[in-house]
Amino acid sequence: MSVKVTVWNECRHEQEDEEVKRVYPETIGGCLMDGLAPYGFDLTLRTLDDDEQGLPRSLLDETHVLIWWGHRYHGELADERIDYIQQRVLQGMGLVVLHSGHHAKIFKRLMGTSCNLAWREADQGERERLWVIQPSHPIAEGIPPYIELPQSEMYGEPFDIPEPDELVFTSWYQGGEVLRSGCCFKRGRGRIFYFGPGHETFPIYRDANILRVIANGINYVNQAHGDGWSLDNWGRPEPAEPGAPRQTRFKRPRKPGGVKPE
Amino acid sequence: MSVKVTVWNECRHEQEDEEVKRVYPETIGGCLMDGLAPYGFDLTLRTLDDDEQGLPRSLLDETHVLIWWGHRYHGELADERIDYIQQRVLQGMGLVVLHSGHHAKIFKRLMGTSCNLAWREADQGERERLWVIQPSHPIAEGIPPYIELPQSEMYGEPFDIPEPDELVFTSWYQGGEVLRSGCCFKRGRGRIFYFGPGHETFPIYRDANILRVIANGINYVNQAHGDGWSLDNWGRPEPAEPGAPRQTRFKRPRKPGGVKPE
Amino acid sequence: MSVKVTVWNECRHEQEDEEVKRVYPETIGGCLMDGLAPYGFDLTLRTLDDDEQGLPRSLLDETHVLIWWGHRYHGELADERIDYIQQRVLQGMGLVVLHSGHHAKIFKRLMGTSCNLAWREADQGERERLWVIQPSHPIAEGIPPYIELPQSEMYGEPFDIPEPDELVFTSWYQGGEVLRSGCCFKRGRGRIFYFGPGHETFPIYRDANILRVIANGINYVNQAHGDGWSLDNWGRPEPAEPGAPRQTRFKRPRKPGGVKPE
Amino acid sequence: MSVKVTVWNECRHEQEDEEVKRVYPETIGGCLMDGLAPYGFDLTLRTLDDDEQGLPRSLLDETHVLIWWGHRYHGELADERIDYIQQRVLQGMGLVVLHSGHHAKIFKRLMGTSCNLAWREADQGERERLWVIQPSHPIAEGIPPYIELPQSEMYGEPFDIPEPDELVFTSWYQGGEVLRSGCCFKRGRGRIFYFGPGHETFPIYRDANILRVIANGINYVNQAHGDGWSLDNWGRPEPAEPGAPRQTRFKRPRKPGGVKPE
Repeated sequence: MSVKVTVWNECRHEQEDEEVKRVYPETIGGCLMDGLAPYGFDLTLRTLDDDEQGLPRSLLDETHVLIWWGHRYHGELADERIDYIQQRVLQGMGLVVLHSGHHAKIFKRLMGTSCNLAWREADQGERERLWVIQPSHPIAEGIPPYIELPQSEMYGEPFDIPEPDELVFTSWYQGGEVLRSGCCFKRGRGRIFYFGPGHETFPIYRDANILRVIANGINYVNQAHGDGWSLDNWGRPEPAEPGAPRQTRFKRPRKPGGVKPE
Repeated sequence: MSVKVTVWNECRHEQEDEEVKRVYPETIGGCLMDGLAPYGFDLTLRTLDDDEQGLPRSLLDETHVLIWWGHRYHGELADERIDYIQQRVLQGMGLVVLHSGHHAKIFKRLMGTSCNLAWREADQGERERLWVIQPSHPIAEGIPPYIELPQSEMYGEPFDIPEPDELVFTSWYQGGEVLRSGCCFKRGRGRIFYFGPGHETFPIYRDANILRVIANGINYVNQAHGDGWSLDNWGRPEPAEPGAPRQTRFKRPRKPGGVKPE
Repeated sequence: MSVKVTVWNECRHEQEDEEVKRVYPETIGGCLMDGLAPYGFDLTLRTLDDDEQGLPRSLLDETHVLIWWGHRYHGELADERIDYIQQRVLQGMGLVVLHSGHHAKIFKRLMGTSCNLAWREADQGERERLWVIQPSHPIAEGIPPYIELPQSEMYGEPFDIPEPDELVFTSWYQGGEVLRSGCCFKRGRGRIFYFGPGHETFPIYRDANILRVIANGINYVNQAHGDGWSLDNWGRPEPAEPGAPRQTRFKRPRKPGGVKPE
Repeated sequence: MSVKVTVWNECRHEQEDEEVKRVYPETIGGCLMDGLAPYGFDLTLRTLDDDEQGLPRSLLDETHVLIWWGHRYHGELADERIDYIQQRVLQGMGLVVLHSGHHAKIFKRLMGTSCNLAWREADQGERERLWVIQPSHPIAEGIPPYIELPQSEMYGEPFDIPEPDELVFTSWYQGGEVLRSGCCFKRGRGRIFYFGPGHETFPIYRDANILRVIANGINYVNQAHGDGWSLDNWGRPEPAEPGAPRQTRFKRPRKPGGVKPE
């Protein structure tokens, strides 16, 4: 079965900025759709200006992996919508957060930190070189020891994230900075991959290696299976050990479903 | 200088439940104040029913380490208050979350997960045995290979938290379950210690080893120093490397302070 | 292509101890061969008393995943053989270490620690319950929230291993102890899975869930791909940045191959 | 009580290479002794050509923290000596491994990996900039957001080490590479800090920030306390739970001390 991937793109730069229109006439989301098509995913494109900000529950419920590209309008997304997306990730939906998505509400929500970093944006960009830290990691399949991008926006350390569960890439910048630019996190049943490069004025999402990393990332964060416990609140009135003390306190009314059968 | 510790206690069980009154006539917070006094901390006690829910900004600003005991009324704390506490932790305030604080808004906020676990509450409790996983960890100073509690509430796996940065204790329960019951996390400049035991109807906070663990935990999460970068958003218009491209994009108005001098 | 799995079994208990003969008349290795056959692996069985202790280089060179069950005769394996196995793991061969293999030279070599733990062996064993800590982990596919073993040998904390890269199972024992009993580690390009249960006098390797965990573990530690850098010593006389200083120091003769072309 | 620090320096470059003599006329070890003196440690200097290669058991037994600088002659150290040093680290002796010590037997032993990395050595060196990844880490006390070294040897990724327990510094190099250059590991009761910069032909150990990092590192890896279990093999014939099955298998003679009293 194909992995169902929803590519969510803010898609306002592409309307507001002439320069972005020139670089991505098909929009960033459109470019990702084209670039990921050969990998056999079942792809859906949505933007901030679509119905329900492109993120209706019905779509999220069927999405295996959500790709996130946002920048200027993170604040427009209602907290309730973010609540639901977070819940879906904790249930196992994979999440790939690209570039300026470091400040997306959903990423900050899942990290618990500010996700601040250092940054510098030059007209012609600067050179970025992404070094593979773990060459045998599934996300590094098909990738050479480093990826060189002639034009990129600098995103530098310290990056205020929890220590990643896995560090796959670290970036070097021409201007003298470094970044943990490919980071995996597990939250609940879900996996998250943050991938740094992708400024809107540089054609980074046309780079074959970058696309390969994103495709690998999709496969990596796609939940392996849905077996086992759901990570819900788990009242266990009967102990696993026969004869051990049983639940006796039900003095206060509890919500139905609070105690689940095994 | 003494570590400034604010002990925050919901302190409603102690008014509502006869049984809790009998076990903790001085309240759980009061018991912690007494038990931690010999360690030389500068201790302040606050409860949910105090002014500003016991957590005014002026107090948080001066607090080095915040101890959290809450249970039934997590929902009463306004999100804005939690925002501020989170900000203080990211700035370096230490946080010790006790027992049912696993479902406190501030803990879930910092973890990014549901923090659900399995649980069972028996009238007379059940035996819990906390095994030290890292005997040389600062939090295990003065602690024997395990701590045995004759009466405890079962809190079991799977515990929906990010993989802890350090796992110090794992608990065994009479009823057949286990829990990662002593977990350290780093978020921003702050450190967090979650410690599992401490149900309101058992005199666990009178146990000398438990108090020692909490005292050690306070010292451990107390920020080592305030030097270095603040982890704010860090615009760096000038590259570290002379001659590399400089910041050129200031087309949109930015908030003052968005670009910081180094 | 099938995963090439070499099941290495010390296979001396099965000759020396009547009790083990009764429980595993086909030997532990034979039982694993039978139990893993349905999973479609390309399985090879070897024992300590085979040629070259069952671990000739030619076999190791073709092995994708090595399963290790040893106990009393760890010391018979020459250090040079262990050197080669370690090298293969660092090159990407997966390793699944079972039960008393915690004290195998190869495991201690890869961990860098004593791998000591607590233990107790009772004639009829004691109950062990393995709790799944990460239900969505690939190794937990098809596994219920816990696996209960009526008869097991106690292996307890503190287990002197580096903090695992991933903790998948934690065990509860009837006698009051706990163990991090399912642990993943990455070393070089290789992955390692340690799995605790499997004492020679109890029919644990006939349990369908235990076999499923081992099969999942094989798939998990099997290297995803062989792309990217080999993790050899990497002389880089030419900098990635044109114009930056080049290698100038070749004053001392170096081994051929010390500087690799990219 | 002062921390007892043994500075171990191979100290052959200082005799063999004119250039190193010019840069470190007092030897690298001597320079570290001078630079660390103001921090109040109880310092001892030893070299490879001292009695027992500078590492007699009597000295190791009294050493709280061992500093390691070696390069060309790693192979001269006998494996038995490394065995003992490893044992001391697992018992709690701190270890600070500097620069080319990445290939020291003791470091590779504790890591379990090849510890290979990329490297390039230019006559005049190249610029290195060490970025602080965790500004509030004890090792970063007193350190600015980055340390700039005008002349350094490039050590680059991929660095074949286990994922560090804590990543404190990441280095940028003029030639286009990056390195996780300040890494903490826990092994047994011991802590290890690897710190990258320090080539023998550049006066890096005269840099005040570099010395501060090493001094902070010493304090960080110095074992917090000696309480709790020793991490020896722990036979537990009596279960923690009264009434649970006791040890019954003592059929084969065991070494005295194999079963320890609690």
